[in-house]
Amino acid sequence: MKALPDALTLENLLAEVGEAILAGRLDAAALRRAEAAGAHDAGPYWGSGAGGGVLAAAHMQGLVSAGACRLGVCCPDPLRVGDLASYLDHTLLKPEATVAEIDTLCAEAIEHRFASVCVNGQWAARCAEILSGSGVLCCAVVGFPLGAMPSEAKAYETSRVVEDGACEVDMVIPIGSLKSGDDAYVQRDIAGVVAAAHRGGARVKVIFETALLEPSEIRRACELAVRAGADFVKTSTGFSKGGATIEDVRLMRSVVGPSVGVKAAGGVRDRDSAEAMIEAGATRIGASAGIAIVRGETSGSSY
Amino acid sequence: MKALPDALTLENLLAEVGEAILAGRLDAAALRRAEAAGAHDAGPYWGSGAGGGVLAAAHMQGLVSAGACRLGVCCPDPLRVGDLASYLDHTLLKPEATVAEIDTLCAEAIEHRFASVCVNGQWAARCAEILSGSGVLCCAVVGFPLGAMPSEAKAYETSRVVEDGACEVDMVIPIGSLKSGDDAYVQRDIAGVVAAAHRGGARVKVIFETALLEPSEIRRACELAVRAGADFVKTSTGFSKGGATIEDVRLMRSVVGPSVGVKAAGGVRDRDSAEAMIEAGATRIGASAGIAIVRGETSGSSY
Repeated sequence: MKALPDALTLENLLAEVGEAILAGRLDAAALRRAEAAGAHDAGPYWGSGAGGGVLAAAHMQGLVSAGACRLGVCCPDPLRVGDLASYLDHTLLKPEATVAEIDTLCAEAIEHRFASVCVNGQWAARCAEILSGSGVLCCAVVGFPLGAMPSEAKAYETSRVVEDGACEVDMVIPIGSLKSGDDAYVQRDIAGVVAAAHRGGARVKVIFETALLEPSEIRRACELAVRAGADFVKTSTGFSKGGATIEDVRLMRSVVGPSVGVKAAGGVRDRDSAEAMIEAGATRIGASAGIAIVRGETSGSSY
Repeated sequence: MKALPDALTLENLLAEVGEAILAGRLDAAALRRAEAAGAHDAGPYWGSGAGGGVLAAAHMQGLVSAGACRLGVCCPDPLRVGDLASYLDHTLLKPEATVAEIDTLCAEAIEHRFASVCVNGQWAARCAEILSGSGVLCCAVVGFPLGAMPSEAKAYETSRVVEDGACEVDMVIPIGSLKSGDDAYVQRDIAGVVAAAHRGGARVKVIFETALLEPSEIRRACELAVRAGADFVKTSTGFSKGGATIEDVRLMRSVVGPSVGVKAAGGVRDRDSAEAMIEAGATRIGASAGIAIVRGETSGSSY
């Protein structure tokens, strides 16, 4: 990651971009100036990341509403810190999901003001279009859920979904390579996805599948993800033998430090467990049970 | 698929190519002549496909040994028809598989003379190198196991693994699109993978995940796969709620006819069930329990 810009410079530039968007006169030059100032690296989430609380909330709200996630500064919305819904990636990844179910997912996410919808890549373009201007992001998974495709294919898939409108990309590491001790391969694999995503202004969450890893492997994966420029680390795909645990979230937060996000996913089905994950250091929750979570109910869903 | 060439023409051309490979004097022109004559489409498997039994086995054995799977005529080896091992794709797809486990898989496949090893794409180059000249093919999965990445990414991933040495590509259809009635999307998705694979001389098996489909959907998927030029249809990934059933294999065979392969995968763990699948019309079996199957034992493995 680039060094963070001076906060005041960044704030001024973002304010300018925000006004330009709102006035309908955004031009490429303003975006480039913001990018050159490091807007993309302003911190992966509001509230505890570098830059959080510095930028004028009113400007940011305007940017969010205008769909300016490409500036990398809109998740979750700073006006909603403390709002549980703003932590939730509303998730539907089962392969048999129909277009009608995807549309419903988006409508629910807009209604409940979730941080994003998290979908398979084939739906990214559709979701991005539906969500445009809503303040809800489109998040697409890559190399999912096994993480074992060639690195070049993972990077290409990333470019593709970002071009289709995904603002966030949840990728899976090559777990077998980590287990084989090939840390260089793992870091390159992540870095390829990060480069492709950041080129398009999108963030990357790096999924470890913690249920398959020893604590020492989780620690190594965190270090590699941070070195590769990841914006978030994430526990699980929801397709393996186990999901997020409090212990794993706590360990991940302790290794990545305060400036990288931690997403807890897999098995979070009610408000209590979501709040426990946040307490342990999670800044995002992946769940198909988002509505039950915000309503304080319990879902029977397995993700 | 192109119309099949005259069998004698094809045999003569393949014999010429085979001799050229064995003599170390293969040139691009000979390969082009064989391809122009339709060598690629000589039938997806020996024994019951068009062209089976016509070509001189001795020449074919030479081609197989020389690693000439790119001609599309070497699986399984015609000298081994009736040999259960030649029906088996020796499979290791769990994401945490280490490089040592992949190497063991290849060694076992060579020892038992399985049709192929079936692995995740990140291992294709390694497996292809280890298997080179053994007569065992490298098969890589694509869009696996959800089938829900953008079609362009699936086609790119195919090119990548074929370039890395995969002779066979097992892809997953966009199941949600099939369920949504978007048959045109499904056919295009498959056709993109088929084009990328055939360009590199590799075959395509199209996975439906039959446990998620109604019989009418399986039928439609078969028709779309055949129209898109698939070489095989395949029941399951091994990562969903169920694997191959006799009924599904029988249905798929009845729809695709005799000139397209049928691969039964998922839950085939012993010789009896493997033979029952072949009896129902399967021409390839995907299993992690290949060794138990050929030895007449039962495996506890779930794939």
